[in-house]
Amino acid sequence: MNAKVSSPRTAATQRRASERKLDPDVVDDLVAAYRTLASLNVLDAFGHVSVRDPRNPNRYLMSRSIAPEAVTAADILVLDLDSQIVDRKDEGTLLYRERFIHGEIYKVRPDVNAVVHSHSPTVVPFTVTRAKLRPLLHNAGFLGYGAPLFEIRKYAGNATDLLVETPALGKALARSLGKNAAVVLMRGHGDSVVGPTLRDAVFRAYYTEVNARLQLQAITIGGPINFLTKQEAITSNEAMLRAAARPWALWRAKALAAR
Amino acid sequence: MNAKVSSPRTAATQRRASERKLDPDVVDDLVAAYRTLASLNVLDAFGHVSVRDPRNPNRYLMSRSIAPEAVTAADILVLDLDSQIVDRKDEGTLLYRERFIHGEIYKVRPDVNAVVHSHSPTVVPFTVTRAKLRPLLHNAGFLGYGAPLFEIRKYAGNATDLLVETPALGKALARSLGKNAAVVLMRGHGDSVVGPTLRDAVFRAYYTEVNARLQLQAITIGGPINFLTKQEAITSNEAMLRAAARPWALWRAKALAAR
Amino acid sequence: MNAKVSSPRTAATQRRASERKLDPDVVDDLVAAYRTLASLNVLDAFGHVSVRDPRNPNRYLMSRSIAPEAVTAADILVLDLDSQIVDRKDEGTLLYRERFIHGEIYKVRPDVNAVVHSHSPTVVPFTVTRAKLRPLLHNAGFLGYGAPLFEIRKYAGNATDLLVETPALGKALARSLGKNAAVVLMRGHGDSVVGPTLRDAVFRAYYTEVNARLQLQAITIGGPINFLTKQEAITSNEAMLRAAARPWALWRAKALAAR
Amino acid sequence: MNAKVSSPRTAATQRRASERKLDPDVVDDLVAAYRTLASLNVLDAFGHVSVRDPRNPNRYLMSRSIAPEAVTAADILVLDLDSQIVDRKDEGTLLYRERFIHGEIYKVRPDVNAVVHSHSPTVVPFTVTRAKLRPLLHNAGFLGYGAPLFEIRKYAGNATDLLVETPALGKALARSLGKNAAVVLMRGHGDSVVGPTLRDAVFRAYYTEVNARLQLQAITIGGPINFLTKQEAITSNEAMLRAAARPWALWRAKALAAR
Repeated sequence: MNAKVSSPRTAATQRRASERKLDPDVVDDLVAAYRTLASLNVLDAFGHVSVRDPRNPNRYLMSRSIAPEAVTAADILVLDLDSQIVDRKDEGTLLYRERFIHGEIYKVRPDVNAVVHSHSPTVVPFTVTRAKLRPLLHNAGFLGYGAPLFEIRKYAGNATDLLVETPALGKALARSLGKNAAVVLMRGHGDSVVGPTLRDAVFRAYYTEVNARLQLQAITIGGPINFLTKQEAITSNEAMLRAAARPWALWRAKALAAR
Repeated sequence: MNAKVSSPRTAATQRRASERKLDPDVVDDLVAAYRTLASLNVLDAFGHVSVRDPRNPNRYLMSRSIAPEAVTAADILVLDLDSQIVDRKDEGTLLYRERFIHGEIYKVRPDVNAVVHSHSPTVVPFTVTRAKLRPLLHNAGFLGYGAPLFEIRKYAGNATDLLVETPALGKALARSLGKNAAVVLMRGHGDSVVGPTLRDAVFRAYYTEVNARLQLQAITIGGPINFLTKQEAITSNEAMLRAAARPWALWRAKALAAR
Repeated sequence: MNAKVSSPRTAATQRRASERKLDPDVVDDLVAAYRTLASLNVLDAFGHVSVRDPRNPNRYLMSRSIAPEAVTAADILVLDLDSQIVDRKDEGTLLYRERFIHGEIYKVRPDVNAVVHSHSPTVVPFTVTRAKLRPLLHNAGFLGYGAPLFEIRKYAGNATDLLVETPALGKALARSLGKNAAVVLMRGHGDSVVGPTLRDAVFRAYYTEVNARLQLQAITIGGPINFLTKQEAITSNEAMLRAAARPWALWRAKALAAR
Repeated sequence: MNAKVSSPRTAATQRRASERKLDPDVVDDLVAAYRTLASLNVLDAFGHVSVRDPRNPNRYLMSRSIAPEAVTAADILVLDLDSQIVDRKDEGTLLYRERFIHGEIYKVRPDVNAVVHSHSPTVVPFTVTRAKLRPLLHNAGFLGYGAPLFEIRKYAGNATDLLVETPALGKALARSLGKNAAVVLMRGHGDSVVGPTLRDAVFRAYYTEVNARLQLQAITIGGPINFLTKQEAITSNEAMLRAAARPWALWRAKALAAR
């Protein structure tokens, strides 16, 4: 496939952006993020992505509650940081029950402008065992800031369905993420990944999964694993914030060509 | 791919439903179930899906004996609970030899309205080892009701071909499944998965496979595994009976767009 | 994909069959076998398939030396059991260097009418370790007749390129296969799989790979593995010789639709 | 897919080759190499391939800095062995930061005419553990010349981003590769693979990944692994330098058909 296929802004994007007073590029970026993470198998039919509105830091954009692979511009909604609908036109729309993950993180992490929640398939085993997910690939240097575990049992008791479906649970998750981490592991469930831009959050969600696969393979080989040092992780993370433009150009073009 | 492609009822569906006195939506759902489980690699060229006829609980719908990926509306048949053809027009059609799995489960489990039998590729190893398949992902909470093992050697002797190809073996399998479980493991063969609706049975067949993969990875990492508690499993199962609409909308649309 | 797409015999098939005095159905079957095993990832860009000519048991059909995925009717050649070209028109055509695997097996195994040689990706590890590949899935009952190891070092010395590129090495391989086995493992290389029909050889090549994957997973889980008993394997093999029609119908239709 | 689809030289190839005084076949080969290694999952959105200019051994061809899957003839640039742009027309073009891997290897290895740098997904675990990557499949005989580890920490200190982004680091990597090896492992990063022709470098990059997978599986099975002897590896490598034409014909045709 030639990923250079031009992807001019569609009429649907234009309309949605105009009606909701959004930047059409941000709408397209968000649609591309959903589809990309589905095609990279980080998201299956569950999971969601959001981006803070660059025009108003107290709002964020997210799809209505549908499978990521199917998201189009017409599905993009605006929520406030309490994860409530902003626009009257959207009242009655089915929302993701776990949207509080996003809103509560935006409240306490002004450095974060995008959030991905997924059931990342090789990350889940690291949420139910004692192994620590640690960076061994330079692309995953952001894991050097830690990947703390959110054990929902502590907050929701022993009969929870593991879903972060209340503001209180969203706040608890955001506290587990802490001030510096890019990833919080969710026991028996998946993870939530954050970044300074949507592009970076998508990049990190993908490389969290990749690093988990590599670490699992290294565990299979056995013996000590030569992880990145703390300083290597920090330097690699900085390099990747610059380098993420290359995969994003490819992923975005492919995702939007498919619509 | 845009999964929103409309999938209007085809003439073939209409004709089949009319001739066999079936609800055309149920025919389409069943076709979608076969194809979805093939595209998710739960079914390969073997395996089958059935749904109890909502118009008559003493009958069920199933394809004639072909590979799941190839099933169309014209292949859907009606069987009674002894797994015999109901309609004279279908006499002489080649039937799945293991259809008794379905009929015998419907007889003893009135709560069950759909059955999937597959060689789910990561489930098979759990049928020939002593590890117990247990829920560690919230989507697989239904595994909290157990995943008993059907050891066909006990019923068919030491020279069996492992196929459940008689009513007696179907009854024995249904007894192994028991009153509450959603999954019965079949030694050296695969599993059978049940649900209150077709959508749920498809969802559960997929997440049985996913959970098996995750558990295998957790075993590779080593150490104790933090499985769902019994109560978490029950609560998660209830949440997923509600949430299954989201993947099903995607899967059904993609499966029917392909015809 | 709807596998029911009709695949009428092409002009190319007709021409090739007529010029080489072959049954056009056999030509199409062989083309389908190459492509199917490539799409199932049993063959990569190497490996080959042959079928004994039903019109003359002292000849067999095979492609010229190209990658399996690219084989068409125009590539099919006829070889004698010394693996030499039969038809003058084919002189100068590049042949697979390892074609002696096929010819030498046909000489000593009159029950065999088709041979697949591949680098089956999960079988290779079983050729370089001490684990025995044994049937644990009923579809792979044929492994109950053993899967002996051909250690080419014994016949070609310590500096071999591991290729079975002489009649003598072909004979040694055929002896390793023996009178009853359906599969011979080739150290550091792959395997060769035989069957009474082409359909069965394709089926067995695929399920040899599947069983290897399942056995590797069962080893990862740990503890004793409940393999098929000898008698279960024999009975299952007989059942599968009947059941192989179902996957073959799907695979053949898809492979020929792609041309 | 029928890989025989003709892939006549495009106008874009013709134009690029003419403007940069390149052999158009070499341009097409290089485009095919990028896309092939992306479709084989050796390259993801990172990594790069180069080929020494057959018309001038002091220059090499490489794409501008984009994702491998998206490379077309119009992206191909000429660099000198200091990895600087040769043609004024290309000034200001974004170059791969790690291009020094290529230039510095060409300087010290006159036998090398093509280089692949990738994050080959199953190779990375062998760069952070103590297991040695060794040939067990005959296609990977070239690994018999060793697969030394480049530990960038020795040259770039403890706070490196692991990127080979200076001439000095390129020289250090080339020294680690040494006089004979075809592969150098890069800790926490991937590998660089070389060959006498572009076709061979692509072949080796793919089979380095394949052999890593097979070795990981053999480690999972446990016990001693029957690796190729040194002499088998050498002889197999020689056989594969001849045999690489077969996969290359398939890969090149598919890659160029996609443009």
